[in-house]
Amino acid sequence: MTERNLQIVLASRPTGWVEEANFRLQEAPVPEPGDGQVLVRNRWLSLDPYMRGRMSDAKSYAKPVEIGEVMVGGTAGEVVASRHPGFAPGDAVTGSLGWQRYGVADGRALQKVDTREIPLSAYLGPVGMPGVTAWVGLIDICAPKSGDTVVVTAASGAVGSVVGQLAKIHGCQVVGVAGGPEKCRYVVEELGFDACVDYKAGNLRGDLKQALPNGIDCLFENVGGEIFDTLLARMNAFGRIALCGLISDYNTADPYGMKNIRSVLVNRVKMQGFIVSDRMELWPPALKELAGHVAAGRLKYRETVAEGLAEAPAAFIGMLRGRNFGKQLVRLD
Amino acid sequence: MTERNLQIVLASRPTGWVEEANFRLQEAPVPEPGDGQVLVRNRWLSLDPYMRGRMSDAKSYAKPVEIGEVMVGGTAGEVVASRHPGFAPGDAVTGSLGWQRYGVADGRALQKVDTREIPLSAYLGPVGMPGVTAWVGLIDICAPKSGDTVVVTAASGAVGSVVGQLAKIHGCQVVGVAGGPEKCRYVVEELGFDACVDYKAGNLRGDLKQALPNGIDCLFENVGGEIFDTLLARMNAFGRIALCGLISDYNTADPYGMKNIRSVLVNRVKMQGFIVSDRMELWPPALKELAGHVAAGRLKYRETVAEGLAEAPAAFIGMLRGRNFGKQLVRLD
Repeated sequence: MTERNLQIVLASRPTGWVEEANFRLQEAPVPEPGDGQVLVRNRWLSLDPYMRGRMSDAKSYAKPVEIGEVMVGGTAGEVVASRHPGFAPGDAVTGSLGWQRYGVADGRALQKVDTREIPLSAYLGPVGMPGVTAWVGLIDICAPKSGDTVVVTAASGAVGSVVGQLAKIHGCQVVGVAGGPEKCRYVVEELGFDACVDYKAGNLRGDLKQALPNGIDCLFENVGGEIFDTLLARMNAFGRIALCGLISDYNTADPYGMKNIRSVLVNRVKMQGFIVSDRMELWPPALKELAGHVAAGRLKYRETVAEGLAEAPAAFIGMLRGRNFGKQLVRLD
Repeated sequence: MTERNLQIVLASRPTGWVEEANFRLQEAPVPEPGDGQVLVRNRWLSLDPYMRGRMSDAKSYAKPVEIGEVMVGGTAGEVVASRHPGFAPGDAVTGSLGWQRYGVADGRALQKVDTREIPLSAYLGPVGMPGVTAWVGLIDICAPKSGDTVVVTAASGAVGSVVGQLAKIHGCQVVGVAGGPEKCRYVVEELGFDACVDYKAGNLRGDLKQALPNGIDCLFENVGGEIFDTLLARMNAFGRIALCGLISDYNTADPYGMKNIRSVLVNRVKMQGFIVSDRMELWPPALKELAGHVAAGRLKYRETVAEGLAEAPAAFIGMLRGRNFGKQLVRLD
């Protein structure tokens, strides 16, 4: 093989907001697959908020990326060479091969996917980790009943957009929270949410009060900070909170002080933090339902695509600042 | 009957800390029991932190006491007159007859108790609402396994002391948090906790770190504020928090800002607020276990007794400030 691999490695750990200087683009040889392994040419890289945690060496649920290591990340691509009986060149696969053009993995760490009815990139979005995250938090943790009011923050994002559409399919009233009128319009007009509150409009408390006359039965929380605190105060008795992300706190050493924890007590709320990779037993039923909805056009999604690996750092930083719209991807040309 | 009833009614709603002027002592006629009702001479009144909530008209899980109404409260006493076939004069009973010498209730709202092996006052403590509260939060919500580290705040109190002793009986490592060296000594030396951290000693974070080398699997939280926030940071993966009370926030309009909610996400913690009266189905198994432990001397308890109804307001205020030691009672002479 004459082509070279292209990689982005962690150059330094961020303090506060991530900067492009925290990453370094480098060339490397294309790796050779060992016994049982598969070489994949990645076509899509998924950018996700959890990656911010891996850049830090603070105690967390997963070990950090080391300085000089390729950044972790979900990928979709095609098999180039295989030393595993389950894979052949040309197979479309997803995996976690990181921020690089080529990657090698054990065959059992790759999933073959069917791109006849669902495009390859959707396996990094509604029919991939973000979709399963939405499913686990909504269906398993919140367990909404028909007629319940479901609120989801970062509503136009890769996870939030699936949460709200799934909740509508399950008969709920759905209110999104998103940043800016364009995202809010999309959430209501394209995705079919019942309402959306623009947290940038300057009247968060009043707007939430008006949009939630019956309170909140299920909260799918991605953002944290003042938005989460304000929503907490509107929880109904026996409400459930799926705590999926706190993106507003990821880039600060001084997190927001939550004042409304009393609502958890007074309203006998169950709040549960979760990580989708803890719940591998739920992936098959989740993916089955999600693939059905996407193939039937019931579950819409939107992608923001950065062109080329070199653009990944800027796209990642933009996502942390809420500049993406829907699922943030990088096309690996 | 020539004796008069004596009552304490809510005179005004507190703003911030409760004051004696929020209560009024008054005489009243001794009530007559109607059909199916029972007249009880109360001997013991239980003072509990939840009463602070009932004095306020902020939205909560129970309706507030109205101005001029007798303060709510658990009581133990003996039947004076009965128009219910299940009760006869002289029977020892517990109920919720409020801050008064005599009360009338439907027979089905009273429980006959056996004072041969367990003293009457214990039915307001370890074999009553506080004990069942401890049982529900620990056994049902936290569900500790043998060897788990269990932390309980307000550890020397009516609920906390039962939580820690039950957890020891179930094979856990138990660390209490209490205010002052005397309470801490009691918790370790008398109640058998493995350790106790004095939150008044001025080194909360360091002392908790030292007392919890293996982190926290189960947290039974009664206090809130800085103590709760500091404990949150020490939760283990898949830890459970039974949120029972937030006494440190009850007397302020500006609650403490919790900075460590991120721990709920990162450690996939389940936090559940609960109220013991929601879980009536658990009272029989809880009371059976608790009565067995108390009768056998395995479950110790301590009482602070105020003498006479007129002392109830001062005793209640003292309890809110942590001045009591163990269960706060009023003897109704």
